[in-house]
Amino acid sequence: MLEEMEPNTASPSQVRRFIRDGKWKNHTSGLANGYVQCNLVILPEPQANDFLRFCQLNPKSCPIIAMSTEVGSPYIDVGAEQPADIRFDIPKYNIFVDGELQTQVSNIDEYWRDDLVIFLLGCSFSFEEALLADGIEIRNITQNVNVPMYNTNIANVKAGELAGNLVVSMRPMLAKDAIRAVQICSRFPSVHGAPVHLGDPSLIGISHIDKPDYGDAVEIKENELPVFWACGVTPQNVIREAKLGFCITHSPGCMLVTDIKNSKLSVL
Amino acid sequence: MLEEMEPNTASPSQVRRFIRDGKWKNHTSGLANGYVQCNLVILPEPQANDFLRFCQLNPKSCPIIAMSTEVGSPYIDVGAEQPADIRFDIPKYNIFVDGELQTQVSNIDEYWRDDLVIFLLGCSFSFEEALLADGIEIRNITQNVNVPMYNTNIANVKAGELAGNLVVSMRPMLAKDAIRAVQICSRFPSVHGAPVHLGDPSLIGISHIDKPDYGDAVEIKENELPVFWACGVTPQNVIREAKLGFCITHSPGCMLVTDIKNSKLSVL
Repeated sequence: MLEEMEPNTASPSQVRRFIRDGKWKNHTSGLANGYVQCNLVILPEPQANDFLRFCQLNPKSCPIIAMSTEVGSPYIDVGAEQPADIRFDIPKYNIFVDGELQTQVSNIDEYWRDDLVIFLLGCSFSFEEALLADGIEIRNITQNVNVPMYNTNIANVKAGELAGNLVVSMRPMLAKDAIRAVQICSRFPSVHGAPVHLGDPSLIGISHIDKPDYGDAVEIKENELPVFWACGVTPQNVIREAKLGFCITHSPGCMLVTDIKNSKLSVL
Repeated sequence: MLEEMEPNTASPSQVRRFIRDGKWKNHTSGLANGYVQCNLVILPEPQANDFLRFCQLNPKSCPIIAMSTEVGSPYIDVGAEQPADIRFDIPKYNIFVDGELQTQVSNIDEYWRDDLVIFLLGCSFSFEEALLADGIEIRNITQNVNVPMYNTNIANVKAGELAGNLVVSMRPMLAKDAIRAVQICSRFPSVHGAPVHLGDPSLIGISHIDKPDYGDAVEIKENELPVFWACGVTPQNVIREAKLGFCITHSPGCMLVTDIKNSKLSVL
């Protein structure tokens, strides 16, 4: 009898084991509710040093949840008894060579090298959960689409070869919910924190709010404001634009599921 | 030689003493920087009970900093060695009879009665100081005018005869400063707390942003949003509209200066 994962009730460790065993190949949205899911960036050591500086200088788009303690080790602490094995514990990976997406793979065993450094970055799933728990509607969830994301004219602080503009995600809401969202998200700096902008999109260089650069458009009602958060697509773009020789990331939506409770990220 | 108050350096106790002795008859804005200044409402006991309930139900517009511990006592604790004497320690008072402003007086000695209850309510001076300290421009201060205030269509929760709509004050700012203002003001619930609205004024029933119902209009720049806070004019309006038989308030801008540090009001 084939063992099957029950998506609504599986623990984070169970989710990782199913993924590791090749029994779950889909995106991870909605799995292990209440637990932190992370964006992944893997770089060789010299570029990893630049990237660490970039994260330090641009913490709103690149909030580090965890990183390698030992260069070349594929194991990383995710708050569980056993560490995650980053080569196998994500359903789908993107392999970049010279800044170009070369292939998508379901494990990175054959790409692993002794000079690689792992970065786990916070993801909006965590703060979306906190907003939903407060009764705030998240339009992209209601409409069951990917969150709309936009290039902006807000420059990131440069680190080595890594530069470029901030990418933002957008969620429309009533002004009173936007104010509440600032309060809630301020408690979670490691998953992008408070919004970076709200209201007129053109003030941050967005000319077509109905045509996102990534993800899907969502409805903005007459009485709503667009609210913009720093987005985890920013570091991926920056890395690709710098045409780094070699880089591995997760594939969009296929995150690393950790055993860290979302509420543990709250600073207040 | 006449003793004169040095407005920039006088302590809160010195300010109250000068006012008590009739040596300071002006508004209190800018005096005893760093210390809480309060709105005043004095009501006879039965109406005071309604008003206390009204404050409890509408804490954003009516945040109680202190109230009488003993009905009929004119003394009230303001965080100093000696209590304030509410009959003399404010430069100018408004006397209302049947909801109408009857007269303005420099002390209320002859109006004092055994059935009166004192309420001290938080005032925007405290959060404006916190915003300024963070480098956020407060337009009404820059333009040296009174803050613009507006009637809204947001209903207060009714308590006895006390009802009516919320009055808001407005400060225009960049979106990023508005977001920061939500963070800063959320720490100060007893001086109106986070804004109640931002962006489109018509959504809260304000049709002419350039024509405030109270105070003065201020410039709103192209790249700014109007940001709205619950305002201490709300309880005064509510009391007047209820045509309560007798009520004493401070005159606008002539507040009770306390020895409570603004920073002590921060909940975080």
